[in-house]
Amino acid sequence: MALRTASPPETLEAIAGRLAHELSRTVVERDERGGTARAERDALRNTGLLNLLIPEAWGGHGADWPRIYRIIRQISRTDSSIGHLFGFQHLMLATIDLFGSPEQTEDLYRRTVAGRWFWGNTLNPLDAGLGARWADDWLILDGRKRFSTGSSDADALIVSAPDTEAADGPRLLVAAVPLPREGIAPLGDWNNMGQRQTDSGTVEFRGVRIHRSELLRTPGPFGSIRASLRPCIAQLIFANVYLGIAEGALLEAKGYLQEHPQAWWLSGVETKQEDPYVLRHFGKLYAELEAARLVTDRAAETLQRAWEEGEAISEAQRGQAAVDIATAKVITTRAGLDVVNRIFEVMGARATSWGLRIDRFWRNLRTYTLHDPVDYKLRELGTWALSDLPPHPTFYS
Amino acid sequence: MALRTASPPETLEAIAGRLAHELSRTVVERDERGGTARAERDALRNTGLLNLLIPEAWGGHGADWPRIYRIIRQISRTDSSIGHLFGFQHLMLATIDLFGSPEQTEDLYRRTVAGRWFWGNTLNPLDAGLGARWADDWLILDGRKRFSTGSSDADALIVSAPDTEAADGPRLLVAAVPLPREGIAPLGDWNNMGQRQTDSGTVEFRGVRIHRSELLRTPGPFGSIRASLRPCIAQLIFANVYLGIAEGALLEAKGYLQEHPQAWWLSGVETKQEDPYVLRHFGKLYAELEAARLVTDRAAETLQRAWEEGEAISEAQRGQAAVDIATAKVITTRAGLDVVNRIFEVMGARATSWGLRIDRFWRNLRTYTLHDPVDYKLRELGTWALSDLPPHPTFYS
Amino acid sequence: MALRTASPPETLEAIAGRLAHELSRTVVERDERGGTARAERDALRNTGLLNLLIPEAWGGHGADWPRIYRIIRQISRTDSSIGHLFGFQHLMLATIDLFGSPEQTEDLYRRTVAGRWFWGNTLNPLDAGLGARWADDWLILDGRKRFSTGSSDADALIVSAPDTEAADGPRLLVAAVPLPREGIAPLGDWNNMGQRQTDSGTVEFRGVRIHRSELLRTPGPFGSIRASLRPCIAQLIFANVYLGIAEGALLEAKGYLQEHPQAWWLSGVETKQEDPYVLRHFGKLYAELEAARLVTDRAAETLQRAWEEGEAISEAQRGQAAVDIATAKVITTRAGLDVVNRIFEVMGARATSWGLRIDRFWRNLRTYTLHDPVDYKLRELGTWALSDLPPHPTFYS
Amino acid sequence: MALRTASPPETLEAIAGRLAHELSRTVVERDERGGTARAERDALRNTGLLNLLIPEAWGGHGADWPRIYRIIRQISRTDSSIGHLFGFQHLMLATIDLFGSPEQTEDLYRRTVAGRWFWGNTLNPLDAGLGARWADDWLILDGRKRFSTGSSDADALIVSAPDTEAADGPRLLVAAVPLPREGIAPLGDWNNMGQRQTDSGTVEFRGVRIHRSELLRTPGPFGSIRASLRPCIAQLIFANVYLGIAEGALLEAKGYLQEHPQAWWLSGVETKQEDPYVLRHFGKLYAELEAARLVTDRAAETLQRAWEEGEAISEAQRGQAAVDIATAKVITTRAGLDVVNRIFEVMGARATSWGLRIDRFWRNLRTYTLHDPVDYKLRELGTWALSDLPPHPTFYS
Repeated sequence: MALRTASPPETLEAIAGRLAHELSRTVVERDERGGTARAERDALRNTGLLNLLIPEAWGGHGADWPRIYRIIRQISRTDSSIGHLFGFQHLMLATIDLFGSPEQTEDLYRRTVAGRWFWGNTLNPLDAGLGARWADDWLILDGRKRFSTGSSDADALIVSAPDTEAADGPRLLVAAVPLPREGIAPLGDWNNMGQRQTDSGTVEFRGVRIHRSELLRTPGPFGSIRASLRPCIAQLIFANVYLGIAEGALLEAKGYLQEHPQAWWLSGVETKQEDPYVLRHFGKLYAELEAARLVTDRAAETLQRAWEEGEAISEAQRGQAAVDIATAKVITTRAGLDVVNRIFEVMGARATSWGLRIDRFWRNLRTYTLHDPVDYKLRELGTWALSDLPPHPTFYS
Repeated sequence: MALRTASPPETLEAIAGRLAHELSRTVVERDERGGTARAERDALRNTGLLNLLIPEAWGGHGADWPRIYRIIRQISRTDSSIGHLFGFQHLMLATIDLFGSPEQTEDLYRRTVAGRWFWGNTLNPLDAGLGARWADDWLILDGRKRFSTGSSDADALIVSAPDTEAADGPRLLVAAVPLPREGIAPLGDWNNMGQRQTDSGTVEFRGVRIHRSELLRTPGPFGSIRASLRPCIAQLIFANVYLGIAEGALLEAKGYLQEHPQAWWLSGVETKQEDPYVLRHFGKLYAELEAARLVTDRAAETLQRAWEEGEAISEAQRGQAAVDIATAKVITTRAGLDVVNRIFEVMGARATSWGLRIDRFWRNLRTYTLHDPVDYKLRELGTWALSDLPPHPTFYS
Repeated sequence: MALRTASPPETLEAIAGRLAHELSRTVVERDERGGTARAERDALRNTGLLNLLIPEAWGGHGADWPRIYRIIRQISRTDSSIGHLFGFQHLMLATIDLFGSPEQTEDLYRRTVAGRWFWGNTLNPLDAGLGARWADDWLILDGRKRFSTGSSDADALIVSAPDTEAADGPRLLVAAVPLPREGIAPLGDWNNMGQRQTDSGTVEFRGVRIHRSELLRTPGPFGSIRASLRPCIAQLIFANVYLGIAEGALLEAKGYLQEHPQAWWLSGVETKQEDPYVLRHFGKLYAELEAARLVTDRAAETLQRAWEEGEAISEAQRGQAAVDIATAKVITTRAGLDVVNRIFEVMGARATSWGLRIDRFWRNLRTYTLHDPVDYKLRELGTWALSDLPPHPTFYS
Repeated sequence: MALRTASPPETLEAIAGRLAHELSRTVVERDERGGTARAERDALRNTGLLNLLIPEAWGGHGADWPRIYRIIRQISRTDSSIGHLFGFQHLMLATIDLFGSPEQTEDLYRRTVAGRWFWGNTLNPLDAGLGARWADDWLILDGRKRFSTGSSDADALIVSAPDTEAADGPRLLVAAVPLPREGIAPLGDWNNMGQRQTDSGTVEFRGVRIHRSELLRTPGPFGSIRASLRPCIAQLIFANVYLGIAEGALLEAKGYLQEHPQAWWLSGVETKQEDPYVLRHFGKLYAELEAARLVTDRAAETLQRAWEEGEAISEAQRGQAAVDIATAKVITTRAGLDVVNRIFEVMGARATSWGLRIDRFWRNLRTYTLHDPVDYKLRELGTWALSDLPPHPTFYS
């Protein structure tokens, strides 16, 4: 832990910057290759940044959410797969805190620090492919979970399964499961057009035994207003990764034009930096990203205030966080898609060389913005704007 | 001044709120009528809000720019002509401070407070219709100035004219002129489709004598980096009025739908508050306005920091203020135009009744957003984003 | 009828051109005034153009729909209120043909020619304000109809009322009623922000007696596939008026720039005709209008083919007409709104002078495009594109 | 030639349909692989479709431009690389006719038919990398040409080089060169993110000898108004390929939703075919594509009329063709980019599986729409719309 001891807290960003620089050297090659980024995940483990949320008393950095989100965005600017995984690490840590008991949180947080754990997500609540049954104090899982981000090369998993004990209809059980655990096998089948190294594939469960004590149900999902912050935290991770991708794309275009400044022969100017249309496009994209950045930062502040309320959080505070975060998601989605499309119009035909893989920004953003439909986020915001009703908490709102 | 003495500073917004409420009763009728809003200007004089920028030591409120801009926006939500005039009052006050000597500032600020002066603007730098010549210590003005906002019913004017003494080519002289002054006649000819009560018409000058001591030339226009903050202040007034118009339009639509909730008969729902398309439109407009609001507030903070630097302000600080303000203008223009157009799509055909004059939001915004072309603001932002060069200071940048 | 006798058919457009030229002289003044355009309606009566659809054998011009729509658009380019009324004349004539018997059609068409009748519309099917009861062979109407386009200064009306005889639930009766008729009083209360001279106000009915023989119920509304062409004809009138408004707006902007060519001082060029941003805006608007024009003309051809099928028309043919017309409506709405908004950005601030009333293009289009929600037209097109199902015939589809 | 003998002309589309069906089986795999599509090029050679433009008298199909363009679009719907190559075949054939003598045309057309020649393009006029010098009657070429579409596996090339004989400054020589020819080597270095099998890479020339008689200079490039139709023909190929890509993408999305109809769980409906937002998106994309299709078809008709004028073509006719084609390019670019982006929003996250490669539509269109900047096409259209001046003929206008 010499690294943290020797560094004042403000250098977390510097650490992230060094990591990003390292990631930048191979990001194009790894976009082509896909699969699990083992070396890069290890580099991230070694930075200590996986412990941002964990209190200093337990060996973490005790960072607040605005800072955590900025670092997610910072990494995503260079490598949005790693940024995504890094964000989900903090979603998993928050899940433990929100759904579990204080004892579970302390225990798992301390073990995360000690073991440099990278958490994976097998919680997808819409996937009915995983069954569960009770055998004494053990929950036995069989089946499959898709969209299990970060499940390969994970040190621990957050797993969800239907609660077959529930008297009052189907509910969701959530467990924190250190790995290895017999019967859990990530299939490594994530091979999508974007976010290619997020390992968001399928995990197979064969007779996996989870002890009752590993379940997070104090209060469990949506057991309290505070617990319902989980989807807020998740959605704001999305917004920050989207924004990071877009910022990275605009920087890529700026750098490309510095190396390839020649203007279109009909433009009447020498350089693209003087072309009236290039300037207008760039100015528009810059302004949109600035707006997106401010909306996203504001949402982190709203979330932080809600988080700090602890169990005292009111529905109105949770609602305001959900609204501000939905706003961030909507604005970053739109501005981001505009950026990753239009940068090509300022760079021109040669920027389509596949060696450059500048299309990765589009592929990454287009893929990740489909997590859940933005139309339904707009509907939520409309209900808020028209009827003053905040979004009803779900795993997506 | 009992009003201010009795009120803690935070009630300036409450005062503005009461004024806005009063304005709301007649705003539709006055939109139809046009012309000078004498009673409303007097109501504004009586609030003491015209002294927001003036230091408390001289009888003003000593408000900072973020607060001044929020109040401009607050009033514009209800009545964007009065909001515009109110904004220009503060532009004129800032002009005195930026272009004049400390003695001029103190003198004119104290007289503004004592006389409840409402300042008018006859500075349009692109209008070559006003000539000037020197006769001893008097500058004699003859001709006309168009787009002279607030010139009717003004207690004092900021006037610009070409400097016929300047050895090094054409420059601009700017004077602060208390009224009445022989030979100055506002023609009251502003009759435009929007911002109808801003009195932005022509002022005629016939042998008007301005004494050398009335000129603001310590340092005069662009005589210092600090002086070049004037266009920044002006452009951010625009952005706040634009945003106020758009916020007012969205509130109008929300209220209209509460009174006329019946959904389209093919929608399958009872109320427009449940219609998926109405919700999506409203959600989108809400999100855009949130982004616009944050960008605009951020610009006010940047400006305030630059303002507080005094003469120590650097080119970089001025540049950052200009960039943030241009961003605010670009974003509020786009989001605002979207709002004032699309609210009709959620309200439906009956909202076009001319008794309601809901088109005034569009007419006001469409008119005012043409002050100077937004394309050239985008070009400035493009130069910043591509080449790290801030806008070159002009009367529009 | 010398006019028609002496003119070969192709000069109908020339006649319309002369009328439009005449209308252009007063269109600005009449936009301000609103109310009924009696002199202009008489001028239109005198052109003989009100008989375009009526067969030559009965004294009309026997024009086909593509030609009728082009002339609607041609007039709307100059005066969209008159273009709207002129379109509705042909909707009323088509209603007689579609809903009535051949004998009714011949009789009413011949009387239309002989009397130079201008038809008004009191058919609004969503308005429950008009009641009906039978007294022997007379239907007695009491109540009010809103949105009764062209009802002032009309020579005959198409009236709808609920069918209180219908055994199988509520249906709509439609009658063709020559005026004057005791108890029918247009209130002249249309005073909206756009389409100001369409007399689309309320008509009051007090004990109005309509004889059974005046009802159009062979087959009556939606009594046959062919009868269900009526909403198609109506919707394509909308699209053509929208397009005419947009074309008129672009021409106005072009002419304005020829008279006021001075470029923005920062542009580096002399004239707006050379300004890169003005050119880009204009090019974009031109291209959009070209696309809108082709879509609209294509829809007229599809409709004409469907019309010519007579009673042999298939559901598929009617469906294709509805789809092509919905496409025209959607595209003209979007392109048109873009034009009427953006022309101001190329013309600049002085074009907002209310004497010019260039905002009328926006007010007219924004008003008329709200006739029924474009979102539901998009939904219909989506069902067609996704599931190959054409719109279900209603009074709006 | 039995194929043509046995088939009436209307089955060219059927032949193209069979080819497209065959291409569809491997298009995903070939998108991944890139490189030269030898088997598919041979399949195309065997259809006889490479001779569409060639008169029947010389063994071709004598198809007109509207038909040729429709077939280009038809193939591009499935495989836009092959559609692109197929379009360029006809651009090369047209180049011979436009720049060469009647004798050259007959000779080269007959040899094209006899040898089933596939032509490649090494004409890029902006590339200064190829030098030329005269040695007696031979032009000797040394250097490189980039963006040489279809140059691999070509049977003949159109080559351009600077005219070093030209007395009046630099001009362009164009030659038609049957292959193999000593010293010509395509480098096969095209590996871009889209249009991956168009072989648009570099061709190396080492001491290549071209005989004076192989030059096309009766009239040569821009030697006549008719010759200046070449860029028109090229730009309309682009528009048709763009449109084909977009149509293919919409069909892909429709088919995908038929196989994966499950609606978003918060939608309140069972299938995406009923989801209000999915329908609105699809309706909008459908309408945009319809408009794009009509604009593109209209441009082909204008071009055909200009083509049929032969040498009698006027500047106005050429200008109208250029304007209509620029309109098609602008509209297909915008509508197409909207389609290839938004289809993902209706399909959802699973459609990003890289096995499906649905991103290829975006990659193909985004790449090809960068051929020359659309902003400058908009500028040309603006000049036409504002000042009635058609585009000045260049290799891009």
